[in-house]
Amino acid sequence: MRTVDLIRKKRDGGELSREEIFHLVSGAAQGTIPDYQLAAWLMAVVWRGTTRAETAFLTDAMLRSGEVMDFSDLRGAKVDKHSTGGVGDKTSLIVAPIVAAVGSRAHADGKRIYVPMLSGRGLGHTGGTLDKLESIPGFRVNLTKQEFRAVLEVCGCALSGPTPEIAPADKRLYALRDVTATVESPGLICASIMSKKLAEGIDSLVLDVKTGSGAFMKNENDTVALAELLVDTGKRIGKRVVALITDMDQPLGNAVGNALEVEECVEVLNGKGPADVRELSIALSAWMIFLGGASADVQEGIRIAEEMIATGRAHDKFQQVIRQQGGDESVVDEPDRLPRAKGTETIRSAHGGYISRIACEQIGKACAVLGGGREKQDDAIDPAVGIVVAKKVGDVVRAGDVLCNVHYDAEPRLREALALIETSFIVSDEPPQRQPLIRKIIGS
Amino acid sequence: MRTVDLIRKKRDGGELSREEIFHLVSGAAQGTIPDYQLAAWLMAVVWRGTTRAETAFLTDAMLRSGEVMDFSDLRGAKVDKHSTGGVGDKTSLIVAPIVAAVGSRAHADGKRIYVPMLSGRGLGHTGGTLDKLESIPGFRVNLTKQEFRAVLEVCGCALSGPTPEIAPADKRLYALRDVTATVESPGLICASIMSKKLAEGIDSLVLDVKTGSGAFMKNENDTVALAELLVDTGKRIGKRVVALITDMDQPLGNAVGNALEVEECVEVLNGKGPADVRELSIALSAWMIFLGGASADVQEGIRIAEEMIATGRAHDKFQQVIRQQGGDESVVDEPDRLPRAKGTETIRSAHGGYISRIACEQIGKACAVLGGGREKQDDAIDPAVGIVVAKKVGDVVRAGDVLCNVHYDAEPRLREALALIETSFIVSDEPPQRQPLIRKIIGS
Repeated sequence: MRTVDLIRKKRDGGELSREEIFHLVSGAAQGTIPDYQLAAWLMAVVWRGTTRAETAFLTDAMLRSGEVMDFSDLRGAKVDKHSTGGVGDKTSLIVAPIVAAVGSRAHADGKRIYVPMLSGRGLGHTGGTLDKLESIPGFRVNLTKQEFRAVLEVCGCALSGPTPEIAPADKRLYALRDVTATVESPGLICASIMSKKLAEGIDSLVLDVKTGSGAFMKNENDTVALAELLVDTGKRIGKRVVALITDMDQPLGNAVGNALEVEECVEVLNGKGPADVRELSIALSAWMIFLGGASADVQEGIRIAEEMIATGRAHDKFQQVIRQQGGDESVVDEPDRLPRAKGTETIRSAHGGYISRIACEQIGKACAVLGGGREKQDDAIDPAVGIVVAKKVGDVVRAGDVLCNVHYDAEPRLREALALIETSFIVSDEPPQRQPLIRKIIGS
Repeated sequence: MRTVDLIRKKRDGGELSREEIFHLVSGAAQGTIPDYQLAAWLMAVVWRGTTRAETAFLTDAMLRSGEVMDFSDLRGAKVDKHSTGGVGDKTSLIVAPIVAAVGSRAHADGKRIYVPMLSGRGLGHTGGTLDKLESIPGFRVNLTKQEFRAVLEVCGCALSGPTPEIAPADKRLYALRDVTATVESPGLICASIMSKKLAEGIDSLVLDVKTGSGAFMKNENDTVALAELLVDTGKRIGKRVVALITDMDQPLGNAVGNALEVEECVEVLNGKGPADVRELSIALSAWMIFLGGASADVQEGIRIAEEMIATGRAHDKFQQVIRQQGGDESVVDEPDRLPRAKGTETIRSAHGGYISRIACEQIGKACAVLGGGREKQDDAIDPAVGIVVAKKVGDVVRAGDVLCNVHYDAEPRLREALALIETSFIVSDEPPQRQPLIRKIIGS
């Protein structure tokens, strides 16, 4: 099989077979196909697209390019959640302890659910679970395979970065896509997401596919198409997959910034916190509980998730996993022990009216500018900085009301961030049309 | 200027500016842009195409990526001919001496025409001028810049391979295109051809754009479109350019194979040889003579070209250039001194009728199989082998008539070639529709 012939076939709009796709992907993983041929093929894929079958082959090939974790000896379902990323998107830290706590409740009758969660870091305007977790002093996100398994066994969940053994083809292809303008292909996006998630050895997956100005997919039709592709691909590989299309036209919750978001997660686990974070976390948990076989339907899943919060079991589970991963568990009861920024600047509204829009991507960028995010893969992160919004879309605001508080460590970065934040809140005379937080559910 | 942004712009169908194209092409020449980014850009170019302006910028950038020869101190026009390649396509060896001889004729009144001809090697089913020339014992095609100039000054023509200084961006891009399935882009093809030709420091160029089963472009509409692009690009860069669309549905002339073709060229220079080779060589020469200012019109150019043959001046000029380039000039009068194959196999027709078709690409491939061509850039060539066709399309044939003679050096190669050749001549009861040799003239 000659690589140039496969590039030509895709260039001319042909459908590659399972064997042809495995040739390309294993060549990427093993380094036997040079970067320039992969780059040409990737651009041909962006041009011609991939069929559903090709997308599944691509995912499967990328999955098998590395190790697939095997937790089949752990009795119980293995379920994970994945979000396509957004601003203030912190539900992983809430969902993992809630679902892991289900196995330890009194009436569990042996239905245990494991959440082996491999996450990523933030890039550009979006945050990443690993960065948020690292704002907890001592918390280790670079677990070895053995450590990951040990934490999962003890806690029912484990939260770590991917090991080098996971989907090596994706690592090489993603790095290439980034510098060759070939990121924007639904098939490639799907294979990248799903190969890493399915390498966790899970049975079921709940996807949180974000749509709106702060999401990767701005347009709801594109978002639904991607969600359908993700669900279909998972099903073709024999997994139970559901996707929730959720709003990212404004930050999720109030806090944007790593330590600030951890604090908000603790609030939700304590039965408080912003309504939207709570609603979405419970919905995602409920779907995980249902797919994991611990509830008869999603409604019962919701009741169980709420019970995990109300009884303090999710709170205790979060403390346990922090302790197991080397972190300071006392932050859960004393959030002041989290890193704190040196100063706070308050932004107030010049006018009265309704908040009609919050430029979500701009808020995410402002957080990155403050030092809370990164432009390039290896930039360092300041865990303490961020933005806490006080008003959300639809809220009534009077002139002089606080719109948000900006937590900063360096004056020049603050000034740069303020330029973005000050134009991010749009106040108008008429109340805006409100969109539901959960727009659609695909694959239910 | 970030390379990834330029790739994205072309990917999204945008038109790149002169500066943007120069950034990419000089990055290719200087090695500052990695192969994978060039490969992604090349595939985006195949996808989106290039505008006429982009094609001209690309050509100009590739031309300027290396040295442009300067013969402005040589008084007279500098004119060249380029063919897109075919089977039995040997006119360069006839045209160069004819046109160079024009300057030395008695009534030339100072109108000298120089033909600085940089040519290429054969690849696949098509032959190359350098390979044909090298079948002349001693003939050197790897002249230095200084040697090339010296031969040109003395003879009025020089025939050599490109020096490393010529269009280095094209060398890198062509090597990449070959292995990334990005050869088939009119803009890239045009820039590759024209940058190398214009680096010869010429004022005018006559293009022989082949169409038909033995050509790179099989379809006449595609061929005309490429010819128009070549002509337009040359004009945008300030050159006089004419393109002849010529038939490549059967081999040109009778001989296919390096030494065999040199012998046929000598026949034409001696006023004999196949009618089609003679007709095309005179037409191409006439256009060169006209564009070079040595005739009032193309008709006069034809008369002058015929005169160069009839008076023996073209014959003498060929001898002179062979001698100047280190070759054995005696082959012109004693073609038996050219390399000869060990054996000859005769193919005869099984039926009577008309030759309705000759599978031209297959004949070219058969010559390569015999050892007269190459599959890969660095394969060695056997100069002696080849095929001499005895019947052409439209000819009447009786059962048992000779269709062609195959000159071979190795039995196994002969057998492989015969399998191709035996199915290449199609005999039918009805005479075929004949197409003119010169189908169209573009840019006149």
